Amino acid sequence: MTHRAALDSLGLDTGKRARLHRILYRHGLCNGTALFLPYDQGLEHGPRDFFANPAASDPRYILDLAVEGAFNGVVLQIGLAEKYYADYADEVPLVLKLNGKTDIPYDGDALSPVHASVADAVRLGADAVGYTMYVGTPAQEADFAAYRTIREDARRYGMPLVVWAYPRGSAIEAKGGKETFYAVDYAARTASELGADVVKVNFPHPEKHSGVKHPYDEEFGSQQAIDAVVRSANRTLLLVSGGEKAGDEAMLEKARESMDAGATGLIWGRNVWQRSRTESLRFVERIQEILTKYPSASHTPGTRG
Amino acid sequence: MTHRAALDSLGLDTGKRARLHRILYRHGLCNGTALFLPYDQGLEHGPRDFFANPAASDPRYILDLAVEGAFNGVVLQIGLAEKYYADYADEVPLVLKLNGKTDIPYDGDALSPVHASVADAVRLGADAVGYTMYVGTPAQEADFAAYRTIREDARRYGMPLVVWAYPRGSAIEAKGGKETFYAVDYAARTASELGADVVKVNFPHPEKHSGVKHPYDEEFGSQQAIDAVVRSANRTLLLVSGGEKAGDEAMLEKARESMDAGATGLIWGRNVWQRSRTESLRFVERIQEILTKYPSASHTPGTRG
Amino acid sequence: MTHRAALDSLGLDTGKRARLHRILYRHGLCNGTALFLPYDQGLEHGPRDFFANPAASDPRYILDLAVEGAFNGVVLQIGLAEKYYADYADEVPLVLKLNGKTDIPYDGDALSPVHASVADAVRLGADAVGYTMYVGTPAQEADFAAYRTIREDARRYGMPLVVWAYPRGSAIEAKGGKETFYAVDYAARTASELGADVVKVNFPHPEKHSGVKHPYDEEFGSQQAIDAVVRSANRTLLLVSGGEKAGDEAMLEKARESMDAGATGLIWGRNVWQRSRTESLRFVERIQEILTKYPSASHTPGTRG
Amino acid sequence: MTHRAALDSLGLDTGKRARLHRILYRHGLCNGTALFLPYDQGLEHGPRDFFANPAASDPRYILDLAVEGAFNGVVLQIGLAEKYYADYADEVPLVLKLNGKTDIPYDGDALSPVHASVADAVRLGADAVGYTMYVGTPAQEADFAAYRTIREDARRYGMPLVVWAYPRGSAIEAKGGKETFYAVDYAARTASELGADVVKVNFPHPEKHSGVKHPYDEEFGSQQAIDAVVRSANRTLLLVSGGEKAGDEAMLEKARESMDAGATGLIWGRNVWQRSRTESLRFVERIQEILTKYPSASHTPGTRG
Amino acid sequence: MTHRAALDSLGLDTGKRARLHRILYRHGLCNGTALFLPYDQGLEHGPRDFFANPAASDPRYILDLAVEGAFNGVVLQIGLAEKYYADYADEVPLVLKLNGKTDIPYDGDALSPVHASVADAVRLGADAVGYTMYVGTPAQEADFAAYRTIREDARRYGMPLVVWAYPRGSAIEAKGGKETFYAVDYAARTASELGADVVKVNFPHPEKHSGVKHPYDEEFGSQQAIDAVVRSANRTLLLVSGGEKAGDEAMLEKARESMDAGATGLIWGRNVWQRSRTESLRFVERIQEILTKYPSASHTPGTRG
Repeated sequence: MTHRAALDSLGLDTGKRARLHRILYRHGLCNGTALFLPYDQGLEHGPRDFFANPAASDPRYILDLAVEGAFNGVVLQIGLAEKYYADYADEVPLVLKLNGKTDIPYDGDALSPVHASVADAVRLGADAVGYTMYVGTPAQEADFAAYRTIREDARRYGMPLVVWAYPRGSAIEAKGGKETFYAVDYAARTASELGADVVKVNFPHPEKHSGVKHPYDEEFGSQQAIDAVVRSANRTLLLVSGGEKAGDEAMLEKARESMDAGATGLIWGRNVWQRSRTESLRFVERIQEILTKYPSASHTPGTRG
Repeated sequence: MTHRAALDSLGLDTGKRARLHRILYRHGLCNGTALFLPYDQGLEHGPRDFFANPAASDPRYILDLAVEGAFNGVVLQIGLAEKYYADYADEVPLVLKLNGKTDIPYDGDALSPVHASVADAVRLGADAVGYTMYVGTPAQEADFAAYRTIREDARRYGMPLVVWAYPRGSAIEAKGGKETFYAVDYAARTASELGADVVKVNFPHPEKHSGVKHPYDEEFGSQQAIDAVVRSANRTLLLVSGGEKAGDEAMLEKARESMDAGATGLIWGRNVWQRSRTESLRFVERIQEILTKYPSASHTPGTRG
Repeated sequence: MTHRAALDSLGLDTGKRARLHRILYRHGLCNGTALFLPYDQGLEHGPRDFFANPAASDPRYILDLAVEGAFNGVVLQIGLAEKYYADYADEVPLVLKLNGKTDIPYDGDALSPVHASVADAVRLGADAVGYTMYVGTPAQEADFAAYRTIREDARRYGMPLVVWAYPRGSAIEAKGGKETFYAVDYAARTASELGADVVKVNFPHPEKHSGVKHPYDEEFGSQQAIDAVVRSANRTLLLVSGGEKAGDEAMLEKARESMDAGATGLIWGRNVWQRSRTESLRFVERIQEILTKYPSASHTPGTRG
Repeated sequence: MTHRAALDSLGLDTGKRARLHRILYRHGLCNGTALFLPYDQGLEHGPRDFFANPAASDPRYILDLAVEGAFNGVVLQIGLAEKYYADYADEVPLVLKLNGKTDIPYDGDALSPVHASVADAVRLGADAVGYTMYVGTPAQEADFAAYRTIREDARRYGMPLVVWAYPRGSAIEAKGGKETFYAVDYAARTASELGADVVKVNFPHPEKHSGVKHPYDEEFGSQQAIDAVVRSANRTLLLVSGGEKAGDEAMLEKARESMDAGATGLIWGRNVWQRSRTESLRFVERIQEILTKYPSASHTPGTRG
Repeated sequence: MTHRAALDSLGLDTGKRARLHRILYRHGLCNGTALFLPYDQGLEHGPRDFFANPAASDPRYILDLAVEGAFNGVVLQIGLAEKYYADYADEVPLVLKLNGKTDIPYDGDALSPVHASVADAVRLGADAVGYTMYVGTPAQEADFAAYRTIREDARRYGMPLVVWAYPRGSAIEAKGGKETFYAVDYAARTASELGADVVKVNFPHPEKHSGVKHPYDEEFGSQQAIDAVVRSANRTLLLVSGGEKAGDEAMLEKARESMDAGATGLIWGRNVWQRSRTESLRFVERIQEILTKYPSASHTPGTRG
């Protein structure tokens, strides 16, 4: 049994708790852990991500994979959700991503524009919404302002809010880049301070510390780093993202360290679907073998009956 | 019979489906293909486009042509729609273009300002609205924000939303320009991810690949390219635009390749009306000869009766 | 009889038609032509314009002149309209100018800020509103956005919308300046495409063509140019402005050419009131001698009774 | 008797007229002239203005002075009005200043941000509101937009609107600076054109004319200049501000010239309270000796009874 | 007994007075002084502030400390307040901080974006809200605009408004920096002029006066400086912040000088919790020994019964 906080101790309103319970205890391993399949790369990077496995260009392929692989949720932008999710409704929870951007223009003052609403998510039967916050961006004011509206709407509708807390922009580059322990730790904390229910972060790289603020310029191991990041997120559930496709063993090791630290789960896209369907499912199985070792109860012992 | 998806399989709400059905099965060839006549060049380029055929400066000339040529729709800005469409109402569907701009100021951070509303389109009896999205523009935030409002209004009114998905701006120029396979493919996907019902793209030029992202820097044929673009658009109907007047045979060849790829149709302006009326109609006939070979049913077999 | 379109063929809603009819057939020569007296120079240029004839600094002087000279309308900003128009109400129609600016700051990205509303115009008994659109300005987005609100309000209130279509800004300067045939023609068309009821343009200078786009770099006579501009405006009534005070004969020749081309009338300020009252009235008489030769009916023959 | 227009001839709505009547005929000399005490320097310049007379740092000191000196009004920002005016309510009229700024950041594109509303003024029992317009600032659009809202609210609530018409910003600096006859004259006219009820200007300096527009580069005396400025303001009541503390005799001479020109009164702060209380009151007496010579009736003869 | 004004003489509406009374007379020493524990450093500086005492990373640790140390209030951002305050509700008053930012991007045109509302504070049972105003920032317009909304909402809900009046940005740096007597004095006055109920300032450093405006370039002692700052704040209650951890004796000396000057209290975070819990509580005791010497009555003598 993990040291993750029970769902009933996070200060969640009823609707958020119901939907998170559905995601964590009615889908996937039903043990309080989560494995999400993000599919917003078509917008974020363009169709070039699909050349490795052209079948993955078709949203039906991805939704089939999510159902068969027993994912806890699939992440879609509004267009694909409206056109494809109906045929998979309730078979796998939908996380509607509310903002996004192409990677074409200059990213130094990154901002992810909102193009859908929490109300859209309600209408489509989603169980959570996603918002990308570019922590440290020079466009911080616009980012926080857009986020605030989403946070308020999410509360009104009882919709769990998953924050992609991504260090980004010229100032982050000048302070060691987006992957440092410094940047990831700060990003997790920012999401927590601003009221995210779930935060998605990249796995921190404590060995990259040129330009970071003290004391992040000292030596830390990766377990120490992810432990601290989970602590910074405190009562905000934490998901670790996969990023670009990397070696399987390294990825699985990160998964183990993340879960040891108290993460709730993983959100891996390209590492999953940039290979054949059979291989994808086999890899998912290996991930789930790990997650299965980190169950958590949805209620604090003694709080019911 | 083409491999285009039937109208009933695109996740469309009732009003959008009714209007798209009217456009595709009550006008033009009534076979599920479409040929549109865009007439926004007076704003986008100025009256200089009319010197080749001064009669085309008069909106009545264009509307007559649209009716006589059996087009599936004519595209007008609000001013001309209010002043001229009444006399042609219901004879040819109206696509009201909701944004537009002059080509005078610097285009590096292109944005097409909204100057009319979906409600205007409803009031004028239009069967669709058009929105130009400059994919990759540094003004992406403002573009997505304006688009979002249009998308939401279009849903509320059941009005099909045609997105002119045009790669544009300094960042696109730095990555090979607006005509590359990379740019067109990304644009089509972006429109689809963001919820367009129909997307209008330029025909891709895979041979222009200096500066594009991998794997678009490899060799692709034009059929391969347009196939991929249609796939990227998935359940978003795709129209191929004509651009500047070019040689007829080359244009018709592009039309064939587009329809082979699964496009729904064409949207050609200057190539049609920058010649005499008789020649225009003769050219339209040749286009329709092609379109007639790509019929599609409006319903998936077995879904009714 | 001119070839101007009758008021009933312009696609106007009832209120707009009533007010334009009042301006064109109840005031001035009552023959469908119009002569307007603009008095916004105190804001646009400052009081320096009044030193040539200090009496003109007093709005009462101008309003007296408008009534005695039988103008079809006087153009005022909100402040002067509120303070002075009551004593002249219904004696001369009021065109309330809704935006304006000082000429002090840098004009390269010109924008004319809105400072009054169509509702203000209704309250003050105005018969039209005026909006300055700086065609080609780098601030095009803000301009179109402000314009859109005015256009929508004008429709709601049945208030005719007169657009000052002025090419302006750094990009226009780089393409030959604000007086070229290219710029004026594009400006007239832009106003028409965006839904102006009346457009005010400067008389085009086809001989200034360094930097303009093709084919405006060819040779055109002034009559050819103004003919084309009126054609570009199509069903938008066209007024030709006077600009800085110039020689009377040259001005009157321009008036004749404009009316020959199908313009509805003239809007001349400084050329009228930057001289003594007696001289002003004498000059107005000469203008009206011209206008009297270009009557037009308010109804298309056979449409009534 | 002065040649100032009577209050009933200014086109004022009832509430504005009632409040201006209270200020001009129920307070001060009750003769249609006005002497205002502005106290916004703590925000505009910071507490450094109070070192010359530390007692003036306390708002109570200023309010006592306003009552004892029989001022026609005291000008406060929202914070001090809320905290101090209650104890002096109705003893001296309150002009609530609705915008203001610190003088710390760069002033080249000056804008005075609104931080209170006309509704705040109504709630606090104010008899007028004040708005600083930086005439000629590159931030003209934002300035006019903010002003417009205030103007509309002032009309809705019948609250007189006093415009601080201050030439400011880099473009004014390039054209001779903020004190030239050119700049002050333009500022007065701008306020009038945009609908101010009262305008506050600096006394013009016609001798500073390097960089100004023609014909302001010619020779004018100070009486000529202030005469012209009052004429430019026309039916907008004009107040002359004091600016930095200067010699008493020079100040009083300016007061005389202003009143001769037709100004309604003066608005002097630092010249009054940057000296001891006794001296302040003695100086006020000297000002009032001047004002007493310029009475005006509130009604045009023959309009009542 | 101190010379601080009684709560009933500050012009406060009922709700604000009730809540400030609760903070000042129902918590802490219950003698009209205040000691606040700010805990927004996780957002403002990131988790690096917690490495000195990792336990402080956990909000529960801080809330326990606030209760045990008998603080008058704890300051939290919305995320931590929603997730942790319920278990401590009414045991220590909550000041909900409504804006905040990371310290990653360039700070030259500092602005602290609003991400929560006064309504959030009401919902969470807070007794005050906090707003950071960056006095002198080039982003002054946006700052004042955001502040204005908060001020109006605070009035509507009767919620005391605590303004973090922080000189910040490139212009302040050019005028001696954020710690000068000049900057702190101006900041206190600005908060007061704009309607803050409570203002939080840094202790002024009169010895740093290179670049400041006259007369701040003269010699002042620290007591003189804090006296003036409290005078500039006038009826706005003043709290002195602690800033970075410094020597205890120096801090306590500042506390004494502040209270002597008429400050209401202190708001110290890192100086308190960047040490062990035992040491923290011992240090708090020493602070309270000082505060206990500066009681003030909540009512002006004779105003009740």
